[in-house]
Amino acid sequence: MTTADAASLLKANDRFLILTHRRPDGDTVGSAALLCRALRSLGKTAFVFDNPELTRRFCGLLEGLLPPDGFTPGYIVAVDTADTVMFPEAGLKYAYSVDLVIDHHGSNTRYAANNLIEASAAAAGEIIMDILDLLHVPLDCRMAEALYISVSTDTGCFKYANTTAKSLRTAARCYDAGINAAPINRECFETKSRARFSLERYIFENMEFFEDGRIAFVFIPRSIVVGTGALPDDFDTVSALPRQIEGVCIGVVMIETRTGGSRISVRTVETYDSARVCAELGGGGHQGAAGSTVSEPPDVMRPRIIEAALRELRRV
Amino acid sequence: MTTADAASLLKANDRFLILTHRRPDGDTVGSAALLCRALRSLGKTAFVFDNPELTRRFCGLLEGLLPPDGFTPGYIVAVDTADTVMFPEAGLKYAYSVDLVIDHHGSNTRYAANNLIEASAAAAGEIIMDILDLLHVPLDCRMAEALYISVSTDTGCFKYANTTAKSLRTAARCYDAGINAAPINRECFETKSRARFSLERYIFENMEFFEDGRIAFVFIPRSIVVGTGALPDDFDTVSALPRQIEGVCIGVVMIETRTGGSRISVRTVETYDSARVCAELGGGGHQGAAGSTVSEPPDVMRPRIIEAALRELRRV
Repeated sequence: MTTADAASLLKANDRFLILTHRRPDGDTVGSAALLCRALRSLGKTAFVFDNPELTRRFCGLLEGLLPPDGFTPGYIVAVDTADTVMFPEAGLKYAYSVDLVIDHHGSNTRYAANNLIEASAAAAGEIIMDILDLLHVPLDCRMAEALYISVSTDTGCFKYANTTAKSLRTAARCYDAGINAAPINRECFETKSRARFSLERYIFENMEFFEDGRIAFVFIPRSIVVGTGALPDDFDTVSALPRQIEGVCIGVVMIETRTGGSRISVRTVETYDSARVCAELGGGGHQGAAGSTVSEPPDVMRPRIIEAALRELRRV
Repeated sequence: MTTADAASLLKANDRFLILTHRRPDGDTVGSAALLCRALRSLGKTAFVFDNPELTRRFCGLLEGLLPPDGFTPGYIVAVDTADTVMFPEAGLKYAYSVDLVIDHHGSNTRYAANNLIEASAAAAGEIIMDILDLLHVPLDCRMAEALYISVSTDTGCFKYANTTAKSLRTAARCYDAGINAAPINRECFETKSRARFSLERYIFENMEFFEDGRIAFVFIPRSIVVGTGALPDDFDTVSALPRQIEGVCIGVVMIETRTGGSRISVRTVETYDSARVCAELGGGGHQGAAGSTVSEPPDVMRPRIIEAALRELRRV
């Protein structure tokens, strides 16, 4: 379906409930807030599903947008959500009744009655902006703030390879609409919580290097996760830390899970394949970023991961 | 003078030498490369001064742009350089013969025959782009790369408070011109050298907190500077590290100089004044960022700095 089709559907319906995905990030929350405010500006009734996994960082976006008790949705829209397995538990009841999904993941499973998937968009927010342009919705400052958070967080503040000229121009429009980007950027891209600081300190102190520094590996035991008081937000981008070091081709972070298992994240630079490394460990993902969560304890997984990384290093 | 005046001057002259400032950053080098290539595309002879302080990170920008032995300039342009004291030593001979300076520092001392100062520009590159538009120079890919480096480095990849809608649209034009931004962003904003990694590790391990975490202080002795093998590029943004931690209002980094003195950098969040802290220590700067380099050794300066930071904390 096209952006215009989605615009028509939004125009023709009412009593919207907008769903976000589990471990909600800036794009899903920002997209939902943007769409909700835009629909309201068109005179519609619209709310954003009260995702219990919402973290402190993004909850301000949903001020005034959560549904009242007993709200019965007339039209359900999911944003930035590739699959119903990505629904938060409390949202699973809507898994078979999504009317429209707006997403930028090429891997989207097309679970909704109508699926608008634009894999070239850096963020779902960009697709929604296109829809709003077709609906002639003027971007007010609060919408712009939501849109800016959507696009900036999914592009690492315009730093990641998915950034396009359109992402930058979308952000410029948000500036035009009067957002104050500096505090958003500081909060999302510069500020480390004390827990995050402790976590990074641990990672920096305990990183191991193999093969002349081309493989970097760090293990975070459960005691450190608990001891630092780190929250889900604090683990954001932790996986990317080893690969940021010059010369590292394959960076691995292994975190001990609550149940004594191993959560493994692999990040690679060009030509090396993270998904291939994780496939050996029962996981998957993309070339540059992949992961695997297994029940085997870290001491069992450690040599297996390092072996898998070594094989990938030698393969290329 | 206006952008149009500067455009006329560039059009009317030839045999350009473009000067960059000492400790050259992405904006001064990118601006110089952009202007040099643009002037050449207009059929002019143009070179960029061979700044001996140029670091590895930005030297690729100047490939083919350095002057041959015995080149005698006909028109000298300085870019992104607020004062002749910012000239590298080897460039001081030009201090009194600059024909045109193009700069975005409001504090520019107007040392040239013609001074185009636009303090609202996030980078000098943005001002040069305006001039090139007036001269109808099409932005080719290599120019766009230089422009992108100029704007992205001076805005911290569009993260700092000086970023404007224009900065973002300028970057979008660079994407349109075909730059491959991802490797630039990785190199400038993501990759840490092993020396930088060691330096950060030291900083993280040795940071001290005062007043409930509102002041963060770290001292880097000369032995660590030497031991980590850190180069000037590696110290880029080190000053900003303490203030990145949540709750820190005043962040201080003190580095022991080659001669046993103290180089102090202060960074503060809104309302607190870095310049006021540094004024007590014989230095100066802006509200958010200031510094001081003194001959007194670090052990003498340490209590004085902490006292000055405490006074500032209590003043507000």
